Amino acid sequence: MSSGEFQLKPYLQERTQLVESALDRYLPKADTLPTRLHDSMRYSVFAGGKRIRPILMMAACEAVGGNPQQVLPAACAIEMIHSYSLIHDDLPAMDDDDFRRGQPTNHKVYGEATAILAGDGLLTEAFILLSSPDVWQSVPADARREVIHLLARSAGSRGMVGGQVVDMESEGQSIDLPTLEYIHTHKTGALILAAIESGAIIGGADDRQRRALCRYGEASGLAFQVADDILDIVADQEALGKDVGSDQERGKATYPALLGLDGARQRARELRELAFTALELFDDAARPLREIAGYIVDRSF
Amino acid sequence: MSSGEFQLKPYLQERTQLVESALDRYLPKADTLPTRLHDSMRYSVFAGGKRIRPILMMAACEAVGGNPQQVLPAACAIEMIHSYSLIHDDLPAMDDDDFRRGQPTNHKVYGEATAILAGDGLLTEAFILLSSPDVWQSVPADARREVIHLLARSAGSRGMVGGQVVDMESEGQSIDLPTLEYIHTHKTGALILAAIESGAIIGGADDRQRRALCRYGEASGLAFQVADDILDIVADQEALGKDVGSDQERGKATYPALLGLDGARQRARELRELAFTALELFDDAARPLREIAGYIVDRSF
Repeated sequence: MSSGEFQLKPYLQERTQLVESALDRYLPKADTLPTRLHDSMRYSVFAGGKRIRPILMMAACEAVGGNPQQVLPAACAIEMIHSYSLIHDDLPAMDDDDFRRGQPTNHKVYGEATAILAGDGLLTEAFILLSSPDVWQSVPADARREVIHLLARSAGSRGMVGGQVVDMESEGQSIDLPTLEYIHTHKTGALILAAIESGAIIGGADDRQRRALCRYGEASGLAFQVADDILDIVADQEALGKDVGSDQERGKATYPALLGLDGARQRARELRELAFTALELFDDAARPLREIAGYIVDRSF
Repeated sequence: MSSGEFQLKPYLQERTQLVESALDRYLPKADTLPTRLHDSMRYSVFAGGKRIRPILMMAACEAVGGNPQQVLPAACAIEMIHSYSLIHDDLPAMDDDDFRRGQPTNHKVYGEATAILAGDGLLTEAFILLSSPDVWQSVPADARREVIHLLARSAGSRGMVGGQVVDMESEGQSIDLPTLEYIHTHKTGALILAAIESGAIIGGADDRQRRALCRYGEASGLAFQVADDILDIVADQEALGKDVGSDQERGKATYPALLGLDGARQRARELRELAFTALELFDDAARPLREIAGYIVDRSF
């Protein structure tokens, strides 16, 4: 595509639709037994997510000349993992949130027991899909194994789950910037990085491309969190769909709390620059990745 | 081995040790960050399980002439999945159990939030291990993918998690035998069957052997649950390590409740016979499987 033609908004809309119709295809149908569990799993997956991880995975695949359609099973798997993590994070024993994206959280609708099991089911479903004989036949067996391993590691106790634990342990405590960055590179960053690296692997990236895309993934993953922290402070409830300033109320450490609002915005801008620099070796096929990094940061200004 | 030599007790002890030292090797070390999470994951994995799923997996591999050592990564993965399911089942929002195998449950020691995340971490760790580049190089890529798929499906919303949901929904309700068997073939049976089928796949079973081992797995998985229900009624607290009759108190449907104690024992004996019959085509290498099916049922008499 020529650079003059690229428009981020229709691109995101088209990709969102592609991901959502694939999720609908891959998830157990709502009339599959046990129906209430599958209904609950679908409720959270289709509760209006931005699909940023699947879209980044497709864009990374595209940047190295791959076919973005090929990543759909892994893209849906990562979205299932993301959805499960939100269900469990919202539980009374965790963040105890009643609303997410303006809608009642899973346990408010289905009860706590079903919400825990819906999360468990979605996490497991990701690996059912990743190892399914019916999808992904064109991806070489070793690339497939590597993607499964990458997604699992980034989601597990040394990745996302580990970040969530340290986040919970730090609540109400004063923490320093390195601890805050540990939390975010694990809790949010690991899965975003894994999305991008998986897209690179499936797209057939060479080592140099893969390293560059990982640098892009680290920077934009952290930028995403800094921007989220800023939005938590400044956005009004309607725009974000969760309690404004709820992180502050709980005494959670955030970038604005540690660096001030201006300092946090400065950090977001620096991370955006790092992401742009990492993409320098790519041609116009990396334009979506560039625009997405810009969008992630700009929404917080 | 000649049939005269086989002794179940030392066999189970030796296999238990093999599994436990492999679990210790494969699980994140307790000093890996976040240490409290890893400590909590290890607490439940090493809380005195009988390792029946890993042992059945090894025995199935052995029955078709495979090397039982080869299944250790998958055997440890299934034990991690089993451990995660116990942590989540014990949570206040689920069965609300304070003790398991005579020891405080995970959330009683580490708190509810960490217990939820330790379960999530263990489930994910199973797939990290199954897809690791460092293990299992001798298993063909497609067999490996098939085992990952089988374990995921048996653990997920159409397997173990689905059984747990229907079990929760049925509490305090009067249910019929088909619903009770649905609960148990899913909640307990699916993972036991997957253990045996995975052992068969890794051991290189032909189609006929695999079908026979699946019949064995279905019968012995259900027998295991019937025996557990009987033990819940008759065992004293010391022997079982959980509240005696706690299923009854919660109004949970059980085999003795539906069939009477004698009827339940009769059902266990029938299932044992089915398991024995399924093994008829195997030679002496299936002796451990035979003895285990006998042991599962006999402990309830």
